[in-house]
Amino acid sequence: MKRIITISRELGSGGRTIGKLVANRRGIPYYDRELIDEAAKVSGLSPRYVETNEQKATGSFLYNLVMGTSYGYGILQGANRQTLPLTEQIYAAQQEVITKYANSGSCVIVGRCADHILKGRNDVLRVFIYADIEKRLEHSVKTYGMSKDTAREEIEQSDRERARHYSAFTDRKWGDRHNYDIMLNSGELGYDQCAKIICSIAETDM
Amino acid sequence: MKRIITISRELGSGGRTIGKLVANRRGIPYYDRELIDEAAKVSGLSPRYVETNEQKATGSFLYNLVMGTSYGYGILQGANRQTLPLTEQIYAAQQEVITKYANSGSCVIVGRCADHILKGRNDVLRVFIYADIEKRLEHSVKTYGMSKDTAREEIEQSDRERARHYSAFTDRKWGDRHNYDIMLNSGELGYDQCAKIICSIAETDM
Repeated sequence: MKRIITISRELGSGGRTIGKLVANRRGIPYYDRELIDEAAKVSGLSPRYVETNEQKATGSFLYNLVMGTSYGYGILQGANRQTLPLTEQIYAAQQEVITKYANSGSCVIVGRCADHILKGRNDVLRVFIYADIEKRLEHSVKTYGMSKDTAREEIEQSDRERARHYSAFTDRKWGDRHNYDIMLNSGELGYDQCAKIICSIAETDM
Repeated sequence: MKRIITISRELGSGGRTIGKLVANRRGIPYYDRELIDEAAKVSGLSPRYVETNEQKATGSFLYNLVMGTSYGYGILQGANRQTLPLTEQIYAAQQEVITKYANSGSCVIVGRCADHILKGRNDVLRVFIYADIEKRLEHSVKTYGMSKDTAREEIEQSDRERARHYSAFTDRKWGDRHNYDIMLNSGELGYDQCAKIICSIAETDM
């Protein structure tokens, strides 16, 4: 059974809304911003610093150098972690928190390379949510109250940052279908239907 | 309602099997090899020629030149079509046949850029089926009785040909998520579950 659902998503595609719908329907915890606070506690960095910098990581060369291993495997503890650049410390802390949550029971985890951090586990359903640019603009204008031009800039910047961050820590391409079990076009299917599909898979014994 | 289901797929991902399961469950026609025979009739070319060359098209420059329009819009009739190179004649004939099938009622159509040919219609569900290379090899060895090495060559060649053919006629990238409503990893979800998900969407009033 797919107890843990990781949701990667394009900004403005409603991935968070869909994640919350899934968590509510299944009566399981939803982790999104909670990961910022928890990672802050684990790393000793401020929640604000974590929030501002969690997607800024642009390379994992030093991370790997300190680890002496391939990308992102294993969890760095205490002193070792503090020798890393701050953005890598954030990733390592989030990795620890995500692994702890996944080991504690069923849940929905949004973003933060959770699909990669938990890869190889067969109790994880890896979902990617996307939509056409027009639908993403519409959602962003409505949800965040920004102008269409600002929304477009935010979306373009977010796509670049997520792609860079994901590939820096996972050595894989963000949005590459082979990293996910299912990819849903929320603009065409609707948020409710996306949540329904995810729940139906999560409830199936595979 | 999504009456028409187009299935694009990676070789060895079980897209045909899933398409047949969907057609059987919904009691609707399944079009795959039938498109070869119909396109042969429409174009006057031999079925064998169509089959061998339908994925060989590598450019639509002449196609557009003759059409005087953007890629693949509209259907070429009779004399006009015969001024095209043969691979473009095949595409034009398949375009005509696919449009005819879609206008005749509910159906499943596998391959042949059907998602693009029918784009803009809101009664079409555009599906892409994929799987990890190991699962694709396993499926190809089992289904076609080929060696693993031959299967790997066939898969790599098919990926290249499908990508080239799709982009030549649609000006879009084969496998780009934004061209599809849903993308399913059949190696992880299983063929039955993929079919179940597709049917559940097709049955929903959206």
